[in-house]
Amino acid sequence: MKHILLIGSGKSTAYLIDYLLAHSETAGIQLCVIDQKRSNRAAEFKNHPRISFKEGNILESELRHRLIKKADIVLSMLPASMHGPIAVDCLQFEKHLVTASYLSEEIKQMQEAAVQKGLIFLNEMGVDPGIDHMSAMAFIEDIKAQGGKMKLFESFTGGLVAPREQPNLWDYKFTWNPRNVVIAGQGGAAKFIQEGTYKYIPYHKLFRRTEFMKVAGYGTFEAYANRDSLKYRQAYGLEDCLTLYRGTMRRVGFSKAWNIFVQLGLTDDTYQIENSKGMSYREFINLFLPYSPTDSVELKVRHYLKIDQDDIMWNKLEELDLFSHTHKLTQANATPAQLLQEILEQHWTLAEEEKDMVVMYHKFGYELEGKMKQIDAHMVVLGNSQSHTAMAKTVGLPMAMATLLILNKTIQTPGVHIPITKEIYQPILDLLEKEGVAFHSFDVPYLGYATEYVASS
Amino acid sequence: MKHILLIGSGKSTAYLIDYLLAHSETAGIQLCVIDQKRSNRAAEFKNHPRISFKEGNILESELRHRLIKKADIVLSMLPASMHGPIAVDCLQFEKHLVTASYLSEEIKQMQEAAVQKGLIFLNEMGVDPGIDHMSAMAFIEDIKAQGGKMKLFESFTGGLVAPREQPNLWDYKFTWNPRNVVIAGQGGAAKFIQEGTYKYIPYHKLFRRTEFMKVAGYGTFEAYANRDSLKYRQAYGLEDCLTLYRGTMRRVGFSKAWNIFVQLGLTDDTYQIENSKGMSYREFINLFLPYSPTDSVELKVRHYLKIDQDDIMWNKLEELDLFSHTHKLTQANATPAQLLQEILEQHWTLAEEEKDMVVMYHKFGYELEGKMKQIDAHMVVLGNSQSHTAMAKTVGLPMAMATLLILNKTIQTPGVHIPITKEIYQPILDLLEKEGVAFHSFDVPYLGYATEYVASS
Repeated sequence: MKHILLIGSGKSTAYLIDYLLAHSETAGIQLCVIDQKRSNRAAEFKNHPRISFKEGNILESELRHRLIKKADIVLSMLPASMHGPIAVDCLQFEKHLVTASYLSEEIKQMQEAAVQKGLIFLNEMGVDPGIDHMSAMAFIEDIKAQGGKMKLFESFTGGLVAPREQPNLWDYKFTWNPRNVVIAGQGGAAKFIQEGTYKYIPYHKLFRRTEFMKVAGYGTFEAYANRDSLKYRQAYGLEDCLTLYRGTMRRVGFSKAWNIFVQLGLTDDTYQIENSKGMSYREFINLFLPYSPTDSVELKVRHYLKIDQDDIMWNKLEELDLFSHTHKLTQANATPAQLLQEILEQHWTLAEEEKDMVVMYHKFGYELEGKMKQIDAHMVVLGNSQSHTAMAKTVGLPMAMATLLILNKTIQTPGVHIPITKEIYQPILDLLEKEGVAFHSFDVPYLGYATEYVASS
Repeated sequence: MKHILLIGSGKSTAYLIDYLLAHSETAGIQLCVIDQKRSNRAAEFKNHPRISFKEGNILESELRHRLIKKADIVLSMLPASMHGPIAVDCLQFEKHLVTASYLSEEIKQMQEAAVQKGLIFLNEMGVDPGIDHMSAMAFIEDIKAQGGKMKLFESFTGGLVAPREQPNLWDYKFTWNPRNVVIAGQGGAAKFIQEGTYKYIPYHKLFRRTEFMKVAGYGTFEAYANRDSLKYRQAYGLEDCLTLYRGTMRRVGFSKAWNIFVQLGLTDDTYQIENSKGMSYREFINLFLPYSPTDSVELKVRHYLKIDQDDIMWNKLEELDLFSHTHKLTQANATPAQLLQEILEQHWTLAEEEKDMVVMYHKFGYELEGKMKQIDAHMVVLGNSQSHTAMAKTVGLPMAMATLLILNKTIQTPGVHIPITKEIYQPILDLLEKEGVAFHSFDVPYLGYATEYVASS
């Protein structure tokens, strides 16, 4: 019997727990779930012999030591900043570790020790990061195996609301951490390369420089650039690629309207608004407008941001009650970003019958036998219910699968990893396909550019 | 004989040294100037009995202790961040201290100790901060003495090039630290109040929200908001003021064109451009433009920022050779802001015959006997030569005057100060007027606003 310790039982663990339990007999595993508060699934599995639920604060070292000692492998679903002490204990007590978070510098430093002790510390094992790495590496290594030379790699992911009969004007709702959506793109210019030329987009222009892509059966999407598209250049073996671009997907028209918030300054999270509590939405918007009290807030916004009277953007703002005298903010001394989030959550929270959707789109440009070629590939996953969301599925399944593959020694190379080696990505992509998480790929004309014009034109 | 130690002999000390020497006999003073490198005025005053020049690093504590011990009063012209150890020594050896820098938290904490030892630590004793405090307080206290209630205070300062026969299109040149001009306004939203309503302007909109003001004989100016207009609300006794706004003055049209740099991302100082050395100005601009190699950099800028073909802004960009293939950047791995500064310095460095100008503009709105009134006041100071600039005059004279007034005990209240008490500002304003540094004031109709519309409209 192998013991799995799952730390955290939040939103993204529905499929993770289901998958592990579905394989618990055949894999011979026992699952222990620890969370600060009672899991809302504890009742459901009350009499299940393969799972137990505990309550407690994993930051208390005595409890943490006791639970980790008992386990063979630890899965941490805590926020990235809290993995540190867990990783330290996994090293000390010689347990494997799997997380869906970005690999931290602290864990990276444990590479040598992990190898020595034969431990696997597998990070970035969710959807983005996670499935993006695995699917991209499968295509890239396949192209290289044929003798192709990679020239272009673009990759986009979006957490969206599934197609609905009557979408809101933004065609968007929060399906994950709203705060991350509100402050997305901040903290520095976005950086990427196109045909060998570096490109930089300041935050206040980020949402006006989008790319477009079609996904058969789901229409057209747009994407804005992530902060650092060059992060995985070496890890992916794309040093010779002339174009590297990573982005976040939205429904078409979202970014142009979101830019209104950016231009007004509503996404700023660096200072607090005095007396924000009880302020009407209208008063809140007026804080960011030029002083001219005989003009309406509406006209001031239209003039300030040059919004035509028949622009659909305007209706998107009205849909949020942004000019309402009667809707009041409830948070005291909050930042503009916190107050904007409060307004958006009134309208962008999924209704019970609404489902989420995760969509991913890759472009691979390469040279093969003197010819330029391109493969595009996309994945669409739809949520099943409010608990069994597409996000929970695409984050939780790769983690669960990796856990079982480590326990049965299919994945066995020790050390600190992200899922970019074939040993890891191949069996997991195969298993994901069986669960309906699969990429559809097709050849397209190479969308390269005439390099001789670049930067000189 | 009283000994004055002047630390730093840079740009802004020309008038400071002249003024102290002109009064050295009558005031019975001896001046010692210490700088890291030989002062370019050492030869001029080689045989002057009242001044000596030393070379050395004031951060070396032995040297610093020796010089400060010998002095009766210390004037520090170092950058604000370097005043710390000097203030500590002034406290230990019981010497007065005068600086033109913003009062730091570290020096603020010395209030009690300074009072106990009967020392005066006078900060913000230049032009802005300095003359702005003194002139504003003189008007404000005069209005209050008449029974007026302050309702509005706006204050603007600009370091500019003096009127010329053939100004460049920007009508601007660097007359002070160019770096501060390039990164001005960054680090958070600008905050001020108008008729009791807080207003916030994000950096990327700062240069599109200007105010205008006329200065008789010098034409119209514009001003963009400083980061925190509320900083001196309490110090000035303006708690009941409904409007508080501080800004930086430029010639009309500057901000609209500067906004192009902001929009492109050229003023960003947070990341480095790889391989910036040897890059043409044109290639540099292209880093910030959308990828479309068959279009020219010019058309991409015009389209991206919606600049009409006959807009004078365009000529301002061309005046800087911004689209040149042949002009190359010389700094390696520099930030966008550093590279923009390099380009601007090619065009915005004062020629030998060109003079600088310091201009200041205050508005005081108040209620007196049930009526709303307003006084506007402005000051213009022109430079005399490349060494004797308006900036050196307006920074150096207040410091020199304060020094003599402390030594002759006209200013005698001990403690940590900024020049907002009548004991300090009155004698200095009187002396400044004799040197041609004076305000011209006049009554104007009160430019208040109908408060009942604010924020509800």
